[in-house]
Amino acid sequence: MRFLAHITVKLPHDLSDRERSELARAESDRGLELMEAGKLVDIWRVPGKQANVSLYEVSDATELHDLLTSLPMWRWLEVDVQPLAAHPLTQRRDGPRPP
Amino acid sequence: MRFLAHITVKLPHDLSDRERSELARAESDRGLELMEAGKLVDIWRVPGKQANVSLYEVSDATELHDLLTSLPMWRWLEVDVQPLAAHPLTQRRDGPRPP
Amino acid sequence: MRFLAHITVKLPHDLSDRERSELARAESDRGLELMEAGKLVDIWRVPGKQANVSLYEVSDATELHDLLTSLPMWRWLEVDVQPLAAHPLTQRRDGPRPP
Amino acid sequence: MRFLAHITVKLPHDLSDRERSELARAESDRGLELMEAGKLVDIWRVPGKQANVSLYEVSDATELHDLLTSLPMWRWLEVDVQPLAAHPLTQRRDGPRPP
Amino acid sequence: MRFLAHITVKLPHDLSDRERSELARAESDRGLELMEAGKLVDIWRVPGKQANVSLYEVSDATELHDLLTSLPMWRWLEVDVQPLAAHPLTQRRDGPRPP
Amino acid sequence: MRFLAHITVKLPHDLSDRERSELARAESDRGLELMEAGKLVDIWRVPGKQANVSLYEVSDATELHDLLTSLPMWRWLEVDVQPLAAHPLTQRRDGPRPP
Amino acid sequence: MRFLAHITVKLPHDLSDRERSELARAESDRGLELMEAGKLVDIWRVPGKQANVSLYEVSDATELHDLLTSLPMWRWLEVDVQPLAAHPLTQRRDGPRPP
Amino acid sequence: MRFLAHITVKLPHDLSDRERSELARAESDRGLELMEAGKLVDIWRVPGKQANVSLYEVSDATELHDLLTSLPMWRWLEVDVQPLAAHPLTQRRDGPRPP
Amino acid sequence: MRFLAHITVKLPHDLSDRERSELARAESDRGLELMEAGKLVDIWRVPGKQANVSLYEVSDATELHDLLTSLPMWRWLEVDVQPLAAHPLTQRRDGPRPP
Amino acid sequence: MRFLAHITVKLPHDLSDRERSELARAESDRGLELMEAGKLVDIWRVPGKQANVSLYEVSDATELHDLLTSLPMWRWLEVDVQPLAAHPLTQRRDGPRPP
Repeated sequence: MRFLAHITVKLPHDLSDRERSELARAESDRGLELMEAGKLVDIWRVPGKQANVSLYEVSDATELHDLLTSLPMWRWLEVDVQPLAAHPLTQRRDGPRPP
Repeated sequence: MRFLAHITVKLPHDLSDRERSELARAESDRGLELMEAGKLVDIWRVPGKQANVSLYEVSDATELHDLLTSLPMWRWLEVDVQPLAAHPLTQRRDGPRPP
Repeated sequence: MRFLAHITVKLPHDLSDRERSELARAESDRGLELMEAGKLVDIWRVPGKQANVSLYEVSDATELHDLLTSLPMWRWLEVDVQPLAAHPLTQRRDGPRPP
Repeated sequence: MRFLAHITVKLPHDLSDRERSELARAESDRGLELMEAGKLVDIWRVPGKQANVSLYEVSDATELHDLLTSLPMWRWLEVDVQPLAAHPLTQRRDGPRPP
Repeated sequence: MRFLAHITVKLPHDLSDRERSELARAESDRGLELMEAGKLVDIWRVPGKQANVSLYEVSDATELHDLLTSLPMWRWLEVDVQPLAAHPLTQRRDGPRPP
Repeated sequence: MRFLAHITVKLPHDLSDRERSELARAESDRGLELMEAGKLVDIWRVPGKQANVSLYEVSDATELHDLLTSLPMWRWLEVDVQPLAAHPLTQRRDGPRPP
Repeated sequence: MRFLAHITVKLPHDLSDRERSELARAESDRGLELMEAGKLVDIWRVPGKQANVSLYEVSDATELHDLLTSLPMWRWLEVDVQPLAAHPLTQRRDGPRPP
Repeated sequence: MRFLAHITVKLPHDLSDRERSELARAESDRGLELMEAGKLVDIWRVPGKQANVSLYEVSDATELHDLLTSLPMWRWLEVDVQPLAAHPLTQRRDGPRPP
Repeated sequence: MRFLAHITVKLPHDLSDRERSELARAESDRGLELMEAGKLVDIWRVPGKQANVSLYEVSDATELHDLLTSLPMWRWLEVDVQPLAAHPLTQRRDGPRPP
Repeated sequence: MRFLAHITVKLPHDLSDRERSELARAESDRGLELMEAGKLVDIWRVPGKQANVSLYEVSDATELHDLLTSLPMWRWLEVDVQPLAAHPLTQRRDGPRPP
């Protein structure tokens, strides 16, 4: 099922620039892995903020939690998760789902 | 997976007493069906309010939406849905889940 | 650019069932048109609510406003719109955008 | 009576990894004790957060406060407590409660 | 145990003055009964509002819900209920509670 | 007149255990003085939190401010104060107040 | 003591223009009485709204409630009341208050 | 001085289409007058809503209130007003203001 | 014109007692100057908080900003400013304002 | 398209006065560049706060994000961005936009 995750990054003030850039690179690498695995379907920046909106495809909330806590920055993320149900319009467009 | 649903009933003022009691009976009957089907796992009253907290076991948010919209009072319900992930404590208590 | 629209339907209580179903059909038809025109990119139900989250691709907020007000139910919609910026991860995945 | 506790963990940034893992183990052990004593009836993770929803069975709010403050992490927990009343549906399912 | 109830009266606009005064008298009579039964311990007006703060002594949230729904105005009340635990200061003042 | 004070304790993280217990004892002693002086009429714990609800009897908001700022922990307290008016029900129960 | 009252007028839609202007005149007359009695010390419009901020001098919250409910529009007012304590600056300016 | 006004239109459901379009034309005419008088400096639509953000140049809040209440739709407008101060950047760009 | 300022003091924890009392004296001195200049018209304590409500008479928001930032504690103040318009009641009481 | 940015500056407490003034000068210089490039159309102070409201003209949210993150203080800014659509009134005033 799909989840929309609203994520804000709150790094502590006393992180060095090097720690910041290492964390950012590790975060980006893990994000790319999740994209290539089909788990992270899409992601957008919230303009003006160190924050993003991301769309996940997972089997349930437990898998979602495991993926989110695997992010290197997780300890400093504020995450709000919104479950999504299928909308009839996408079914009209795509035809019925195979059994 | 589990969802917690926070539900408040907002019936319109101009419903007659008879319509109210018929709706209440139909709502209770449908609730009992969902309990016996193992979908509605538990339910509590929010004290002082015409509102409840209920725990659902469904495959995903689409099934949850279908169950909630099958409630006779649905048109007048304010529903907020909270997805739940498994907690390690229940695994320590119950042992690992079978594959 | 992309916008996320959070839309809640608040139909007045005194609408007849026939008016409701006619409105719903017209709304669905207009939604399908917007999908086929590439304006409405994706849409999901908010479980338990008469509400949706939808993703739009438009040139700017003025075009978005025009599309949203073209929805037959617009007068009764509560719409909150969230602008989205491109995220570096999608660029890493997709390669640089053509000029 | 039943209470739903919404708990968020806010550990201070300067805790060492060892202090964190010792606290986590002590917290888990105390949680298991409360489960085996029938006080902590169920518990779920809030996906994406270091937070949980837990269901307590206690005699009153004073006992609930004593149990929550016995958690090793209590000083860093944000706890919101929601009292629950019995719902007629569970009585229809279970039959009347014995006197 | 003790509960603090924050109650706001929201009577519909189309109630006649006679219906209003009959409801007010019935509400006051039921309130006096609850006071004399030791259930409603104290009550105050919120200045400027048709609202009150009231202190209840009940065995649990289920009894509280039954008392609140027995109020003649209940259908039009917005009720928020806050559970209270014993504070060590009252024990220092009163001495230990008898078993 | 009566005031309801909603008080949350927010001690800084770097206080030693000894400073905490000394502050707690001083706070409890001052609270007892205010009770014995008839100023602090009653007090309850908010379950799960380091917070309380307390009922004050003072001549006006200036006296209330003076009493609250006399608490040893005041610098770290978040205080929200709610003025209370007399409710007709207590007059029906107690008879008219003497002039 | 002083109270700041934040008042919003919410007249029902179906009031005739004549009822509106009669209510407005009666409200203004009662306001002038309260000013001349020294109870309503000052009053300002909230720009853009049918709302005001007003400053009352009363003996306590019970007198304040009686004055506010004596306003002809009271049934349709949303009133939020803020108790005020004396500030040391006014004492520095005015000298100590006579006993 | 400048004010930013955040305005939402909440027309009652039972207005006829003709009343709506007459109100809209009158509102637009009055808006144009305020623009030509240099009072309404700029105005934007909030995308997806029947709402706008508008920038006013007035001598003070009393003049602003008079202008806003002169709008034909004023009775149905929710208006929130934000006062603005001059920013040093505009002074750097424009040079000092003439005396 | 008049502004109501809602001000909360948030001094950092690591200020010494001496720095606190020096800041408090400087703040009080500057406040008295503003009172004597007719800029700060009145001021009240918010009971229980290190906060005040103050009433300013200034020509516009730019002068208000200059006065507020001249307060010695300004860096640690949370300030919310509310513009006030003249109310017809004060005009009825005082007679028309001279041109 | 136009965006309104609501920006609050939250500099950490331990910045020296020199670091503060250097940051402020760099921020002002970058702001002036953005004004001269036609990107930052206007800017106002929020009275009483270290905050501003600024109006941007950009091609989309991605360009807006790039401009905002180019501000020297960006790491300490809380930014909320509001997309704006064209309002029919400005078209009535200015005539139709050229194709």
